[in-house]
Amino acid sequence: MPFAELLPLLKRAHTLSTIGELLGWDEQVNLPPGAAEQRAAQHSAMAEVVHAAASAPRMGELLSQLEATPELSAETQAVVREARRDYDRATKLPPDFVREKAAQGSRGFHAWARAKAGDDFASYAPFLEKNLELARREAAYLGHGDSPYDYMLDKHDPGVTAAAVDRLFTELKRDLVPLVRAIVASPIAARARAAGERLRGFPINAQQMFLREVTGRIGFDYQRGRIDVSLHPFCSGTGSDVRMTTRYQEDQPLDALFSSIHETGHGLYEQGLPAEHLGNALGIHAGMAMHESQSRLWENQVARSRGFWRFFEPRWRELFPAPTREVSSEDLYLAINAVEPTLIRVDADEVTYNLHIILRFEIEKRLFTGELPVRDLPAAWRVASRELIGLEPATDREGVLQDVHWSDGAFGYFPSYCLGNMIAAQLWYRVLELRPAIEEDFARGDFRWLLDWLRENVHAQGRRFRALELVRRVTGQELSPKHLTRYLRERYGGLYGVHP
Amino acid sequence: MPFAELLPLLKRAHTLSTIGELLGWDEQVNLPPGAAEQRAAQHSAMAEVVHAAASAPRMGELLSQLEATPELSAETQAVVREARRDYDRATKLPPDFVREKAAQGSRGFHAWARAKAGDDFASYAPFLEKNLELARREAAYLGHGDSPYDYMLDKHDPGVTAAAVDRLFTELKRDLVPLVRAIVASPIAARARAAGERLRGFPINAQQMFLREVTGRIGFDYQRGRIDVSLHPFCSGTGSDVRMTTRYQEDQPLDALFSSIHETGHGLYEQGLPAEHLGNALGIHAGMAMHESQSRLWENQVARSRGFWRFFEPRWRELFPAPTREVSSEDLYLAINAVEPTLIRVDADEVTYNLHIILRFEIEKRLFTGELPVRDLPAAWRVASRELIGLEPATDREGVLQDVHWSDGAFGYFPSYCLGNMIAAQLWYRVLELRPAIEEDFARGDFRWLLDWLRENVHAQGRRFRALELVRRVTGQELSPKHLTRYLRERYGGLYGVHP
Repeated sequence: MPFAELLPLLKRAHTLSTIGELLGWDEQVNLPPGAAEQRAAQHSAMAEVVHAAASAPRMGELLSQLEATPELSAETQAVVREARRDYDRATKLPPDFVREKAAQGSRGFHAWARAKAGDDFASYAPFLEKNLELARREAAYLGHGDSPYDYMLDKHDPGVTAAAVDRLFTELKRDLVPLVRAIVASPIAARARAAGERLRGFPINAQQMFLREVTGRIGFDYQRGRIDVSLHPFCSGTGSDVRMTTRYQEDQPLDALFSSIHETGHGLYEQGLPAEHLGNALGIHAGMAMHESQSRLWENQVARSRGFWRFFEPRWRELFPAPTREVSSEDLYLAINAVEPTLIRVDADEVTYNLHIILRFEIEKRLFTGELPVRDLPAAWRVASRELIGLEPATDREGVLQDVHWSDGAFGYFPSYCLGNMIAAQLWYRVLELRPAIEEDFARGDFRWLLDWLRENVHAQGRRFRALELVRRVTGQELSPKHLTRYLRERYGGLYGVHP
Repeated sequence: MPFAELLPLLKRAHTLSTIGELLGWDEQVNLPPGAAEQRAAQHSAMAEVVHAAASAPRMGELLSQLEATPELSAETQAVVREARRDYDRATKLPPDFVREKAAQGSRGFHAWARAKAGDDFASYAPFLEKNLELARREAAYLGHGDSPYDYMLDKHDPGVTAAAVDRLFTELKRDLVPLVRAIVASPIAARARAAGERLRGFPINAQQMFLREVTGRIGFDYQRGRIDVSLHPFCSGTGSDVRMTTRYQEDQPLDALFSSIHETGHGLYEQGLPAEHLGNALGIHAGMAMHESQSRLWENQVARSRGFWRFFEPRWRELFPAPTREVSSEDLYLAINAVEPTLIRVDADEVTYNLHIILRFEIEKRLFTGELPVRDLPAAWRVASRELIGLEPATDREGVLQDVHWSDGAFGYFPSYCLGNMIAAQLWYRVLELRPAIEEDFARGDFRWLLDWLRENVHAQGRRFRALELVRRVTGQELSPKHLTRYLRERYGGLYGVHP
């Protein structure tokens, strides 16, 4: 019976954590400007409550009993394994350390914001040093003192190691850099850029309507979720209450649309998790890389395809008659699939985006081995940026200071984005094996087959298997970058007339 | 030092309760239709957390120490007094009773909804019996077994007794019934009704703009609050995060406006409470009647005045040129101050509204004495409705079944609405003594003097004094209905040409 007693404890901790998450959603979407301090106090009180629930001593006793029980079912083992992982993370860090890390994270964030504004890396360096030290200490508390970066990666993607990522990224880099060079040199690149710049003056209420139609058509259930506006798009919530956000600009109509389709991919995953298991491993996603694979698959493989636009383009022209009059179908398609190297990760297209991630991974890895001292970061960034992306930042603001992640100690998160791209491509070719003419479905506005397949093979699995194992089971192969490379070559090689 | 230790415990309980309140706001404003069950689980988990914080044994120890300490300051005494009241309510009810009451409240609500839909009081009567029994038991647990209705009133308005309300309402009824009779008989009444019916076709985005200008101008700080849309208007939140709601209909432009001004009155009170004391008696409102006085004063004394409309009418016509073209200024003013008896409390004007409350109070009082058996309620309602309002409901749906309050055991709440009207009028005549020409302020769009006066004399006081004591201190007199009667006679007697 310990399992029967464990489940409601897990469920309670989960329910309380969803309340904390709602506070975060509300902060981004609704919070009056003057209420930041009050919200911080609410967050802090809620974090304490969630932590108390997640570290309940009874939970530890039950886990120990279950771990000593022979012949648990595979499902029960998965629940116990993930509950143990969460329980250890909730209980093995001394409260003083947790407080210090939270305070340092907040200080680091503000130091980063100041440093970015003033393009002053030196003032930020001591905070980054401190965050690295805290990350190493955290890893040591959890028993990973000899492999702190593995621990950081595993935090976001259970089971993923630096060695595995290194192998995958090295292979990807080898194939991707020449592809990007060839695309940039293609005369089509300028036409794609110009096509994007001609998309201007799209009324926001019609953008909202179109976006709602698209995301609803591909399967987001608005009875169990919603979409609002925030400064940066995100997806939060779970189960029957998934909250996505986007942002609108009249002269960037593809931005709101594609960011919403991206968030819809996340939302579909959450809506597809088994509701009866919410709060335990059978009802939670399989890690951030797998989550990202779902958003990328819908955003890229699906919504940048010709089939997708065969269905949606007429409606798009109907809703935006004036601004689309001078835009040919081929120019629309080029604008959607424009590739242009940029210094800034969040502005990158789906091809070059991966290079931004490889850059960050290589730097993080060397920060953790100690090979790269913090003070040498800006120079290392410039070198890597030139080598990988072909552009060298003139300022640290456009270089090492551009991302918020490290400022509060979130190391090891970046790789998930690129792993997600790899998983999406690998799932996609499995889909094509099973249903070669799936773009014909899309051209009819029918996304049901794909969603059902993802529901059954990915979403319904929860965290029964960790991401790499799940990929193996669903696709019959180990995770490999070759599918992503193949996809990018097929889509962009043809479009840009290049075949490196 | 026990006081210094008590304050953060109170603050923590308060902070957690504000999170529970945000869940409620979000449920009314944002919740996807399919997420009701998930939200119920969140409410339930949060209620347990809030209860644990409010009943922390250490809080009880500190309160006992403080109660045994001589020479506490008046402020400290007030904090201890109200903390004791809350602590007893959190700890003296056995958990089984709390669960039973919550479950019964939910069952009662659904029984009421069914009974109302089917106009079937008999099916609801057993639930009402049970709610009365639970209310008596609750009063007994808190040491008020011999005066359960006093206990119910005191729950919402500390210090208020049935005898006091009885005296106030009897006097009010004596003066109000003839005034209503005279207004209804006036030929102006039909013109006012017709004027209201001509207000049609007010575009909702312009309504939103006007409402935002009005509520901002009278002083609501949108840096520390917001207004959204929900089925029924309400105001929640506190401190720097006050959340109001309204609802819009093109053919009811006064509804959104006046309900928003009403909620703004509540919001101004919350925004005026001393932020440094949030969570203890010095930072909480002085009870529901005082809260209602603030909403009513802005809604009625201020926003139904000629001065107010001298300022806002030009802008109103500017924003709504088409639908206001045929509406004279006098017709607008009559529509705003239309009086027409109705069977339904929530549809009532500010004059007859009080009679709806008196009716409910008289019935609640007799339910608690046992004088009126539940089965005789529909008949008693019909008699009282005819006597007080001059209308007899043909169905129980328009009679005893119209309000939700009793279905989950919220007895003793109704009187706050009418006590709030009395307090508003009494405060208003004090304002007029100090600043006789205040309507000239309004006519210039200047509401600062009034808001500052309320801030200083009411809002900043928190619950240092209970409502009746606060009224006495601010106005120099005991609470009396004569100010409300005077106000209604002055405003409506003149307008309708009647002087009963």
